[in-house]
This record gives sequence, structure tokens and C-alpha cells, in this order.
Amino acid sequence: MAKKKSKKAASKAAKKPAKKNAAKSAKKRAATAKGPRAMSTGRGATPLEIGSRLVADFNAGKWELTDAWSKDLVSIEGLGVAMAWEGRRAVDEKNAWWASTHKVYGGRAEGPFVGATGFAVKFTIDVEDTTTGKRETMVEVGVYTVNNGKIIREEFMYFAG
Amino acid sequence: MAKKKSKKAASKAAKKPAKKNAAKSAKKRAATAKGPRAMSTGRGATPLEIGSRLVADFNAGKWELTDAWSKDLVSIEGLGVAMAWEGRRAVDEKNAWWASTHKVYGGRAEGPFVGATGFAVKFTIDVEDTTTGKRETMVEVGVYTVNNGKIIREEFMYFAG
Repeated sequence: MAKKKSKKAASKAAKKPAKKNAAKSAKKRAATAKGPRAMSTGRGATPLEIGSRLVADFNAGKWELTDAWSKDLVSIEGLGVAMAWEGRRAVDEKNAWWASTHKVYGGRAEGPFVGATGFAVKFTIDVEDTTTGKRETMVEVGVYTVNNGKIIREEFMYFAG
Repeated sequence: MAKKKSKKAASKAAKKPAKKNAAKSAKKRAATAKGPRAMSTGRGATPLEIGSRLVADFNAGKWELTDAWSKDLVSIEGLGVAMAWEGRRAVDEKNAWWASTHKVYGGRAEGPFVGATGFAVKFTIDVEDTTTGKRETMVEVGVYTVNNGKIIREEFMYFAG
């Protein structure tokens, strides 16, 4: 049986009633830990909206750099690569290279998993590296950061379990 | 059949031979997109090492804020909460609150999924909110940022598929 402690004061803390005695509570707060800070991804489409669309599109066989991606997108590849491609032009080149050297036989997106700054998607992809002929099932998590309705950062994290 | 284009120039780019003609290639680079930038989490334990330990510990029923977590840890809760707890003391209070209001019947961690700046873990937890008696299977992804061998940031993203 697993115990998980590193988790949510969340909904509870969010529902706390407004302080009745500001001076007193400020004093108390100073003596204890700092309270949580509210997070926002700004205006426009939310991580839930963008993530839901991305997952649905992927599972329908569509996958393109749509308007959801910012022109200033930073795309980071994970374990064994550890590099960042900065700007849509650089990311487009990476994607074009990948598309030209891989053949995708099928795939599934699971999610979205929705956070405060963005969302994550788990991908399982049946893919062949056409330069080597090696076919494998790639399992990875894409972590997307959203700001003002656009994806400004994506990081691909590869299964290493 | 799914097509996935937004992906890796990765291993290929990483294996490129050293430039033979620096001046020429610099010129060429300026005319095209900017090349990728190398990423590092600094010295100390790697995301792969920390993530592997975290997953193994969780699946063995151990879960504590160990030395893997920085004193300056920022802990962010996702969808519907969207708040950040800053510093180990604040995070400890959040965790203590959560532990006191939830009963965990079992759980499983999948991963780690290893990126360039950290790692992700998918959690499936059978948990009861003891304040309401509601028992459910929580599915979420924890995204961990690593710097110099410590987790400096964690964000919990909740399944909303």
C-alpha cells in the first residue's frame, strides 16, 4: 500500500473564509509559513481547453502546429538529447526532420492532465526510424506551458521505468 | 492512424560531427533557424536518478519529502486550485493538511518519464477524502524540475480526459 504525502492542501485552502482580523492573522502568518500564491495562465484559451483539443486531434489522426502554439515556442527534447529549440522556425525544422526520418504506424494520446501553468499528455506511439528500420513503441509525456491562450513551451520526457 | 510531427530532431542532432568549417557554418546558421541550445540540470543527482528513486519508493509504500527536495521547493497544485506553495515549510504544511484529511488505500507510480529539465511521474491513487467520505481513484501527473541534484519545483496536473 502506498502513502502519498506530497500533495494537495488545495481545494481546502482555496475555500478558506476571508480573514476576520487582518492584523492578527498577518501576525500569525508571519510566524508560520507563507500562504499559497494564486497562479494564472492569463487570458485566452485555458490549459484545459488547449489540452483537450490537442488530445482529441491526436487521437483523430491530426497533428499539426496549429494556432495553439506561440511563435516564440520553445521545444525541449529530454533524456539523452537535452536540447531546446527556440522559436517556431527552429521547431518547424526539428519537426520536419523528424517527419522525414520516421514512419508512424499508430498512436494514442492520454489526457490532458491539467495543471496551473499548463498541461501534460501521455503519448504511446508505434513508430519506425526509417534511417535504421528499427520499429518501437515510444512512450513519453509531453509537458506544455500555456500563456495567454498559447503554448509557449513544450518538453518531451521519455519513459525510463 | 495518428501522425505526430511535433517531435525530436533529437538523437540525430546530438550526434552531429563537430563543425569542420566554423566560419562557413556560422554563416549558414545565421541564414536559417537558430540551432538548438544544450540544457543541463547542473551537478549532483540527475532527473533519471531522482525520478527512478521516487517511483521505486512510492511503489514500495514509502513517500516522504526526502533530501531529494530542495529547501526552496515550490509546489503547485493544478486544475481548480491553481496555487503555488513556496518553500519547504509551506509545502510541509500543505502535505500535513492533506495527510490529515485523506486516507490512501493504495496507489501506483508509473515512470519516470525523463526530460531535460526534470522528470514526470504518473500517479494512480485509491484515496478517500475523510472529511466527506468520498473515495475515488485519483489520476494525475507530477512534473518535477531538478536543479543541482534537488527537486526545486513540482506541479501536480490532474486527469481531465
